Amino acid sequence: MYFDSIPPITFEGPESSNPLAYRYYDAKRVVRGKTMRDQLRCAICYWHTLSWPGRDIFGDGTFEHPWLKGDPMEMAERRVDAMFEIATKLGAPYYTFHDRDASPELGTLRETNAALDRVADKLAAAMERTGVKLLWGTANLFGHPRYLAGAATNPDPEVFAYAAAQVKKALEVTHRLGGENYVLWGGREGYETLLNTDLSREGQQLGRFLGMVAEHKHAIGWKGTLLIEPKPREPTKHQYDFDAGNVYASLQRHGLAGEYKLNIEANHATLAGHSFQHEVAYAIANGLFGSIDINRGDVLLGWDTDQMPNDVVETALVIKDILAAGGFTTGGFNFDAKLRRQSIEAADLFHAHIGGIDTLAHGLLVADRMLSEGRLDAAVAERYAGWNGELGRNILAGKQSLTDLAKLVEDKGINPKPRSGRQEALENLVAKYT
Amino acid sequence: MYFDSIPPITFEGPESSNPLAYRYYDAKRVVRGKTMRDQLRCAICYWHTLSWPGRDIFGDGTFEHPWLKGDPMEMAERRVDAMFEIATKLGAPYYTFHDRDASPELGTLRETNAALDRVADKLAAAMERTGVKLLWGTANLFGHPRYLAGAATNPDPEVFAYAAAQVKKALEVTHRLGGENYVLWGGREGYETLLNTDLSREGQQLGRFLGMVAEHKHAIGWKGTLLIEPKPREPTKHQYDFDAGNVYASLQRHGLAGEYKLNIEANHATLAGHSFQHEVAYAIANGLFGSIDINRGDVLLGWDTDQMPNDVVETALVIKDILAAGGFTTGGFNFDAKLRRQSIEAADLFHAHIGGIDTLAHGLLVADRMLSEGRLDAAVAERYAGWNGELGRNILAGKQSLTDLAKLVEDKGINPKPRSGRQEALENLVAKYT
Amino acid sequence: MYFDSIPPITFEGPESSNPLAYRYYDAKRVVRGKTMRDQLRCAICYWHTLSWPGRDIFGDGTFEHPWLKGDPMEMAERRVDAMFEIATKLGAPYYTFHDRDASPELGTLRETNAALDRVADKLAAAMERTGVKLLWGTANLFGHPRYLAGAATNPDPEVFAYAAAQVKKALEVTHRLGGENYVLWGGREGYETLLNTDLSREGQQLGRFLGMVAEHKHAIGWKGTLLIEPKPREPTKHQYDFDAGNVYASLQRHGLAGEYKLNIEANHATLAGHSFQHEVAYAIANGLFGSIDINRGDVLLGWDTDQMPNDVVETALVIKDILAAGGFTTGGFNFDAKLRRQSIEAADLFHAHIGGIDTLAHGLLVADRMLSEGRLDAAVAERYAGWNGELGRNILAGKQSLTDLAKLVEDKGINPKPRSGRQEALENLVAKYT
Amino acid sequence: MYFDSIPPITFEGPESSNPLAYRYYDAKRVVRGKTMRDQLRCAICYWHTLSWPGRDIFGDGTFEHPWLKGDPMEMAERRVDAMFEIATKLGAPYYTFHDRDASPELGTLRETNAALDRVADKLAAAMERTGVKLLWGTANLFGHPRYLAGAATNPDPEVFAYAAAQVKKALEVTHRLGGENYVLWGGREGYETLLNTDLSREGQQLGRFLGMVAEHKHAIGWKGTLLIEPKPREPTKHQYDFDAGNVYASLQRHGLAGEYKLNIEANHATLAGHSFQHEVAYAIANGLFGSIDINRGDVLLGWDTDQMPNDVVETALVIKDILAAGGFTTGGFNFDAKLRRQSIEAADLFHAHIGGIDTLAHGLLVADRMLSEGRLDAAVAERYAGWNGELGRNILAGKQSLTDLAKLVEDKGINPKPRSGRQEALENLVAKYT
Repeated sequence: MYFDSIPPITFEGPESSNPLAYRYYDAKRVVRGKTMRDQLRCAICYWHTLSWPGRDIFGDGTFEHPWLKGDPMEMAERRVDAMFEIATKLGAPYYTFHDRDASPELGTLRETNAALDRVADKLAAAMERTGVKLLWGTANLFGHPRYLAGAATNPDPEVFAYAAAQVKKALEVTHRLGGENYVLWGGREGYETLLNTDLSREGQQLGRFLGMVAEHKHAIGWKGTLLIEPKPREPTKHQYDFDAGNVYASLQRHGLAGEYKLNIEANHATLAGHSFQHEVAYAIANGLFGSIDINRGDVLLGWDTDQMPNDVVETALVIKDILAAGGFTTGGFNFDAKLRRQSIEAADLFHAHIGGIDTLAHGLLVADRMLSEGRLDAAVAERYAGWNGELGRNILAGKQSLTDLAKLVEDKGINPKPRSGRQEALENLVAKYT
Repeated sequence: MYFDSIPPITFEGPESSNPLAYRYYDAKRVVRGKTMRDQLRCAICYWHTLSWPGRDIFGDGTFEHPWLKGDPMEMAERRVDAMFEIATKLGAPYYTFHDRDASPELGTLRETNAALDRVADKLAAAMERTGVKLLWGTANLFGHPRYLAGAATNPDPEVFAYAAAQVKKALEVTHRLGGENYVLWGGREGYETLLNTDLSREGQQLGRFLGMVAEHKHAIGWKGTLLIEPKPREPTKHQYDFDAGNVYASLQRHGLAGEYKLNIEANHATLAGHSFQHEVAYAIANGLFGSIDINRGDVLLGWDTDQMPNDVVETALVIKDILAAGGFTTGGFNFDAKLRRQSIEAADLFHAHIGGIDTLAHGLLVADRMLSEGRLDAAVAERYAGWNGELGRNILAGKQSLTDLAKLVEDKGINPKPRSGRQEALENLVAKYT
Repeated sequence: MYFDSIPPITFEGPESSNPLAYRYYDAKRVVRGKTMRDQLRCAICYWHTLSWPGRDIFGDGTFEHPWLKGDPMEMAERRVDAMFEIATKLGAPYYTFHDRDASPELGTLRETNAALDRVADKLAAAMERTGVKLLWGTANLFGHPRYLAGAATNPDPEVFAYAAAQVKKALEVTHRLGGENYVLWGGREGYETLLNTDLSREGQQLGRFLGMVAEHKHAIGWKGTLLIEPKPREPTKHQYDFDAGNVYASLQRHGLAGEYKLNIEANHATLAGHSFQHEVAYAIANGLFGSIDINRGDVLLGWDTDQMPNDVVETALVIKDILAAGGFTTGGFNFDAKLRRQSIEAADLFHAHIGGIDTLAHGLLVADRMLSEGRLDAAVAERYAGWNGELGRNILAGKQSLTDLAKLVEDKGINPKPRSGRQEALENLVAKYT
Repeated sequence: MYFDSIPPITFEGPESSNPLAYRYYDAKRVVRGKTMRDQLRCAICYWHTLSWPGRDIFGDGTFEHPWLKGDPMEMAERRVDAMFEIATKLGAPYYTFHDRDASPELGTLRETNAALDRVADKLAAAMERTGVKLLWGTANLFGHPRYLAGAATNPDPEVFAYAAAQVKKALEVTHRLGGENYVLWGGREGYETLLNTDLSREGQQLGRFLGMVAEHKHAIGWKGTLLIEPKPREPTKHQYDFDAGNVYASLQRHGLAGEYKLNIEANHATLAGHSFQHEVAYAIANGLFGSIDINRGDVLLGWDTDQMPNDVVETALVIKDILAAGGFTTGGFNFDAKLRRQSIEAADLFHAHIGGIDTLAHGLLVADRMLSEGRLDAAVAERYAGWNGELGRNILAGKQSLTDLAKLVEDKGINPKPRSGRQEALENLVAKYT
């Protein structure tokens, strides 16, 4: 075992000064009708937690993880052990993976797929043994040089075909392992320069790819949810899945709005110029909400820093919105967050996840209080109350034309008086909950 | 006359050192089958060119425009004279306006509308006299305090009604004056904080408003184009018409994708994190291209600086895309660009527009050469040539499933080799044209 | 009185649900040897709180403040009453002003100065009556068109002279009213384009101006502190006082490092790409710390939003640094924060300041706990402990050359092992304090 | 030889359509008294051009450079051959390197240094053979995990010592090879979080380090220039050498302003929120100008994209400033620019550098015309002409106090009238030169 020095992490309450304990996450505590565990559905991810060696664009890996040593298949098997040890010690009910994080690329696709099947056997056994489940799987369509110009949007249809084959396998492995969702992340679906890019054609390619994946899901009888994860840029200059709105436009255009939901990542939201809460609210408002890649960015930096969440207020407001919309169904909070490159001790991996999970748990408790007291929601409802009157209902029902309304304004001399938006008062109210 | 010291601006050729002459804009020169005048369809705007007094958030107006003196109706009449003098001297074939730039807000909407009709009489006479035409009209739904929380998305349905009445009038005046387009710009349709905002409800309100406007267009028999102008933020924290993709998502959701086109503004594109060329290419690729608000931002600043365009290379690439898509139909290049606050001499207004028009004209000539030589387009066509083969055609035709493609990859041992994107070579090629 | 409906704001404790009460600010509570009042030294500012009418670049003022009605001198007198009513009701010990916020610009400088003297009489009387003191004064050298190209850095030396005359008066009025600091804020000291700018010459002008102000301070025997407030841009494209480091470079170059301290504004820090805490830490580390303009920006927006602070964690970390450096001397927390344009009710002005003051008070309490427990400081001290050893001391004492160190490394085979930066563990520790 | 298919690149003139020829760079053409070669002093860099494998944070290397194959010493020797083949074929007079790009890190520092000496022998021979010279050397103090928390600013003094030993060697090798400059680039001198950072202490460490390097330069009798390269962030959250102003502040504080000049990088300027031209103008105005790392960033992206320069207008304006200040002395234009990761053909390396060199050459020709005609400079001189009058001279000479100027303004009733900044007219004038 890789973490013999780390005890199972348990709940000790807000006053605990034990850094290897939860202060808020009490898995079995019931909040709004479900346990914290079932409300938050936390997942540990393979790539950041196990696979990233601490390398950045200016320097070598700094982590000396024992599971990153040995030949590729040995490393793959060690990573299974490491993942389930970590998830079990943290009490996290889920994990997530890319195909190539779980298992290596070998000589041919057939060999690569066979290796993935062997790792999947080991994963299945570990899942059975520990009860940890698969939140979602995905395929890495961006790391290998063949994908340097994208996968579905590659100028070479053979790359499209290769990507299709890879997704087919990853989807089926996800299905076999009982995964509840399957994610498509843009990777390099975008462009570096418009000078060599046919934007229109690439849009068609991407639409067809997404269509094929949905068709295959139905063909194999998998009942999980297909997710798309918006991101505006990085690694490419422009990524087609820029934000929730751009993804929604594309899904509608290709007749796929019913087939996909969104996997919103906090740091991708801010890179796109939106708040995290905005992207979640947009997804909910348009029937697209699926799951969350939880992390935080550094808004003073222009790249994806993928840090652990630590803002209880923002987390609470997002969870409040999710709970108000019915809570997660197949989705959950996946920690798409990595250690800082300087955090090279084994315990750092646990400090990071404890901080992340406690931020969510604290946020959940705050959201519960906000909803129970209802003062924030009441303020919003009161602000729009006029729309429940006859005029408002008639407008939204399509019973009024511009001409009708112009007549009304002129006849009644309507001259609406502005009302306060009360932003500061509401901010003070939010401050009381934390 | 306000600009007696300024002669009519004429074409003198690239070597001219006369600052009050065009070096590239030769209105009657034929480029790709049309005169420059008809390809570029330049318009002078009321708000920046005539109405903005040089005020910013830190200081008073610095311009001493004579048409900004007098009582409101006198000022309105003077602005008509100033506009047509400017457009005529510049040889610009079009102008654009907001209702409240053209004519003041008075005591009641009825009085305000009557004033607008009187100004419209004067505009019509000036148009008749000069031949300058109306590219588009729009309504100012953001300046008056009644709109502090938005117009269509206001929490008060009476504000919606008031905005509806105002748009009805502005649309009809545009119709009467032979306007070729009508623009809806978001103004304050967005939010300052999600704490007081019902995003979902406001989306419904906005959808209904856009629907009403389209219905009224048909009801009155106007044949022009309805345009929406994306902008991500400013004045609000978040504007619903964030970028072309977000507008497209909303139009599709509300069944209005056939009713609206886009008015792309260069500076709004960069504020949204996109290049100007990207937004135009996206609009074209999705059948949404309508018109351009041409200007430039300062990408090191976070607000809309609305400067005159001066980048010939970028302009040429955008015009190349527009020409390749068939050129403008009802749209054109509207100079949504203002003088710097320090540019307080009468001649500065002309320097600014001369620079802007010459940038477009120079860009048009470069685009023509790029298209005629065809080397850039050939490079793109060659890059995607594989998609014209059997595999590519079958994929896009929907004849291939994931299973088909996986079988193909495995059976044929497909292992695509990456090819160069040749970005630097293409950039060097672009450099040759300027 | 303008706020008859608003009671004096008093401390009611964290559980209070009275929106017009403090939950943390208990003015007389002693924290680290001083009362909260004396630690925080809160000031209400004239410009945002009283003078800004709610106007933005897209719309008219929305506030109907009664003190913004009447002729200029009446308005000035009403603003005195309003300021002291607000400060008194909030229990704020200080206020701040620009000369032109307090009193209008009239026909000649002599008349303008005379008006300012009359307002100063009224201010002095109000100060005497209420005990509210002047934290600092400053001069508005950016609003009037004469300053459109800067004040000290204007290409016209007569503008420099006019600005000098204005600062002389403002400094003397500040002195007369017992102001503890005088602030120079860059305003338009910067440029819109390098095309018309002599950067070197303007640097010399600014240096001389700052020198003159320091000389005049000594000449009149005023013992207060001169402050410079860094800001990177807005209203200009580039402001010379970009950030603390740029100001420090300029002060050293002109031999003025001993004459000026810094007034750090939170939102200006983030506009410059720094965290607020960074700028404060930099100022402290370089002996430049003076005072704070407290507010918050919206890091997703590119302009100065000047919102009330509401981040208790960041505030606590900043206050911890300030306390560790000895606390404020002549400086304080000035609320350079404005109401949202939609916050048009009289009570909103109080909600805003209550939220701001409570954020500081809460932050102070958290900072006190952090310092008392000492765990954060101990972690830092432990990290650098090696520098207390012989090698570290010798290096810093200048006793080691490159050659000495190279010999040491080679002879001893020094090959340092990296240690964890423990960022996540420290972030979790911070989370425990709030 | 690695590039047998690539001919020597020669000048063919602006109309050439040969992609492997210069259109502007005519090495022996005399411009303002020197050959283009001597004005531009172009250098090819080791790291981007030879050492970077096309890896990014999301994917593996895509370049199959033959000199990146073999054992570390073989690779080092091959890179020497590749560098001099490239520089010779391009006709570039200079190259630059980091110690670890040139030669690998081996078991001990002594072994590593011995390897560097062997590579230096080979470099010396190649320099002798080809006439290509060393513009500057530097040390890589950021790639190895020992530097994960910085080099001079590391919390461990042994890392400081190790870095000192490494710089000693790199400086001496630079000296031996006749290098004209030595660069210190911040690397990881900065912080990831203030929670674990003593900003003040690290500032002292960095100051002492820079002092030691200057002392060693004098001790060994090297006459070259020491340079510091500002960068605001990346890889760290905050880098101490944020921009030219911050470096200048630090140099002055540590009494080193006479010992160091600046190596300005275009992309680092924009990451800091400045234009490239601003940073150069600032360096010149403060006597700090040394050399240029020429490239371009993508201002819509938040990281260092290090693309080849392609903006002739900006380049011309920068070169104009450099020429007006006397031109380069020991500095030059180093191409700190890398191929796009998709540019995987051998010819792409040449396309990239041809484009970069031609942009500089074109810019030089434009700058020459601007200077010869003198209209831009005349406009600036005219704008500040007032400062040559008695008032202006007296102010700058320190002969005027605030009191003197206030008296002057009041007595003479000075009330300066604003004048136009003529920005648009000047922008039009610039457009004529390209």
